Amino acid sequence: MSHAEGITHVSDHATEFRLIHADDTWSRRTTDCEDVKGQLSDAKLYESPSEHGVTWMVVSPIIFTYRVMQCERLLDASNDTLLFGHIFNSTELQALKTNINGIKRFIVIDDTVNKLYGSQVAAYFEARNVIYKILPLPTTEENKSMLLVTKILEEVHKFGIDRRTETIIAIGGGVCLDIVGLAASLYRRRTPYIRVPTTLLAYVDASVGAKNGVNFANCKNKLGSYLPPVATFLDRTFLRTLPRRHISNGMAEMLKMALMKHKGLFELLEEDGKYLLDTSLQESEEHIGNMNKDAARVSTRLAIETMMEELAPNLWEDDLDRLVDFGHIISPELEMKTLPALLHGEAVNIDMAFMIYLAHETSLLTAEEKSHILVCMRGLELPLWHVDCTLDLIQKSLAERLKHSAGRLRMPLPTRLGQARIFNDIDNSILCRAFKKWCDEQRVDQ
Amino acid sequence: MSHAEGITHVSDHATEFRLIHADDTWSRRTTDCEDVKGQLSDAKLYESPSEHGVTWMVVSPIIFTYRVMQCERLLDASNDTLLFGHIFNSTELQALKTNINGIKRFIVIDDTVNKLYGSQVAAYFEARNVIYKILPLPTTEENKSMLLVTKILEEVHKFGIDRRTETIIAIGGGVCLDIVGLAASLYRRRTPYIRVPTTLLAYVDASVGAKNGVNFANCKNKLGSYLPPVATFLDRTFLRTLPRRHISNGMAEMLKMALMKHKGLFELLEEDGKYLLDTSLQESEEHIGNMNKDAARVSTRLAIETMMEELAPNLWEDDLDRLVDFGHIISPELEMKTLPALLHGEAVNIDMAFMIYLAHETSLLTAEEKSHILVCMRGLELPLWHVDCTLDLIQKSLAERLKHSAGRLRMPLPTRLGQARIFNDIDNSILCRAFKKWCDEQRVDQ
Repeated sequence: MSHAEGITHVSDHATEFRLIHADDTWSRRTTDCEDVKGQLSDAKLYESPSEHGVTWMVVSPIIFTYRVMQCERLLDASNDTLLFGHIFNSTELQALKTNINGIKRFIVIDDTVNKLYGSQVAAYFEARNVIYKILPLPTTEENKSMLLVTKILEEVHKFGIDRRTETIIAIGGGVCLDIVGLAASLYRRRTPYIRVPTTLLAYVDASVGAKNGVNFANCKNKLGSYLPPVATFLDRTFLRTLPRRHISNGMAEMLKMALMKHKGLFELLEEDGKYLLDTSLQESEEHIGNMNKDAARVSTRLAIETMMEELAPNLWEDDLDRLVDFGHIISPELEMKTLPALLHGEAVNIDMAFMIYLAHETSLLTAEEKSHILVCMRGLELPLWHVDCTLDLIQKSLAERLKHSAGRLRMPLPTRLGQARIFNDIDNSILCRAFKKWCDEQRVDQ
Repeated sequence: MSHAEGITHVSDHATEFRLIHADDTWSRRTTDCEDVKGQLSDAKLYESPSEHGVTWMVVSPIIFTYRVMQCERLLDASNDTLLFGHIFNSTELQALKTNINGIKRFIVIDDTVNKLYGSQVAAYFEARNVIYKILPLPTTEENKSMLLVTKILEEVHKFGIDRRTETIIAIGGGVCLDIVGLAASLYRRRTPYIRVPTTLLAYVDASVGAKNGVNFANCKNKLGSYLPPVATFLDRTFLRTLPRRHISNGMAEMLKMALMKHKGLFELLEEDGKYLLDTSLQESEEHIGNMNKDAARVSTRLAIETMMEELAPNLWEDDLDRLVDFGHIISPELEMKTLPALLHGEAVNIDMAFMIYLAHETSLLTAEEKSHILVCMRGLELPLWHVDCTLDLIQKSLAERLKHSAGRLRMPLPTRLGQARIFNDIDNSILCRAFKKWCDEQRVDQ
């Protein structure tokens, strides 16, 4: 996979061809050719003589399109969303709705979610006369491997689905969505799939982008791909049954976006964090109809919008300079090392807390800004320190990042509340000083 | 994955946003906004109010670029191609060439190819001071499964490569290239890889496109993805050691392109087929310097060019109407059923031979054209019939295709020499008549 810039490096002697479709056949035409009857492709071919024959260059853009939709009552039989919400094309939608017999859906659901919502999911598809199969799986971080992917593939194959019109639906947390996404991206080189997040973390994070993956050789998400779902359906009512610790867990990723890009979101989390935890981000009666007053609505919306801004232009992560990596420099190793002690967002927050110290030591953040952020983290009931997050682990993580980021550190750090830049040079003595202060102030006796 | 046409179906109430990059941060701007200082992305965001919140649509084009290069003496230590031929960017190339220490390459090579060329491959990387690891594998059709992919992933992980600058190199036939391509596409969500085909079939077919895959649940290429290599290096001298039957095998895919798109290529195969088989497509002394007279050079070039015309505009196979599917309607089932009796190209040719009868019965081809084609197939020493290719298998294959092609048959058939169209309706009585004639004329007593 290369960037568009590759185009400019085609040999000067290369002939450029456009591609025209007529009578079921694609033909190449030089760019000065006037005969372009038929459909013109966005793809191009370049041909140049080389030492021993010909060199061709193929440049072919693929457009990825997906929908992320906030909704309610997703499992109400009267609601079309789960069945048809991914279909963009109104003609296709009409055809499907009039010929509803024989529609098939394969659903993968997390074990825990299945206990809470499995019967509702089954009732939905029963009521809609869908041929369906529900596969409950223990989608925990420890089980996030190719084994579960293979299990899904075997069951999908047994069930039989059409790769273009019938979807696989994933209902669960981030691990479930990641595993199903990978299985779907492999089956027949891609099968459309739908994400239904049931945790706050998956709602604001895993659901928004194109990434999927599994752990491999004790490394987090070492295998995976970048195929987005056809749609993500966001229904906050699932969060009602989510333990308070898991609400905090998701808040960590929201706080990440706030620190990197949005002061308003930070202030909202700072002010209303406890309220959001207390209410599990449910709609409160008094605020219905007044969007600006509804902290749950506004904060999730801002978290998703800021995330999308960063992901959409860099869907395949061609650009390694990514603000969304904040909190994800040290945390992957920490999370795997402490498994299953820390939830993902908790490890992310410990990483971010250290980085706040580093940003302050580097004079990027004032003492007041630093204090604001740490107080907010505590308000969100997130851990700010961990005994296993040693200086050694931090230094190793930075070295690992350097190795895999084409020779630059590319470390995002906040420069003030809601703003950040990417840094490539971190002085080791400053790092050590920040580490010491962090431990002195945040160490928790365990 | 959806088409660009998805864009037109965004709700009328959607607000369109462009994305601007400045100070390491992406920000969205409405299209009427004049403030576009910074880098503009090709990606777009759409936001529309929906019943219970917001619906976002992400439209993000990813440009795939890859190089297919004919070359010679690929394993000569003085030849840079295998080491640097995939690098487009001249600055990057210069940097790499001046700092040559510590370059790493992971090579997967087919067992048989390793016996013939393994020491040359090792000698090449030794001479170039590369840190390398050669992994020989039994890459046969029977072994084409996730097991070998996992084996490669484990070894790659142990060896350690940078996902952006260090490549995995696959040297072997189509199965080897397909397996390595899938492993590379999974590792860290993609790792650059290079294809070096050593069979004619891989040279003209597997090497040209983006597809990779493995068999699953006894179905051919049921799992895979569409990640193109960074480069393919085509060196015809590998064919010197290829058994004659495998030269024929590759000719089947060349004949496919000829029948679908290029009368000149057909005439070349018809006239010079035996010569190409006798010489294993090697450069003959008398023809060097005279490209038009060199059947090997011209025929491979035309086969690749016609293939690229069809693949480049449809790299992810969004369009299911594909001329390159000719010979691949019945053959997947036939090949798996008879494994390991038939080589891929042989199964393809049996499929094509039947289709020629069908095209004649449907009055698309004249008796003379039909005869020409069958004589050519025989000249290429390819099988035209197989006892296991029963009417039942043919009908099942067509039914299977109908099921997986969004309700249309989409069957390519030649309409004259070097031209073809896609057909959706095949009368079953004509099919039966074609089958009977085919068996009557081509049955081989075994």
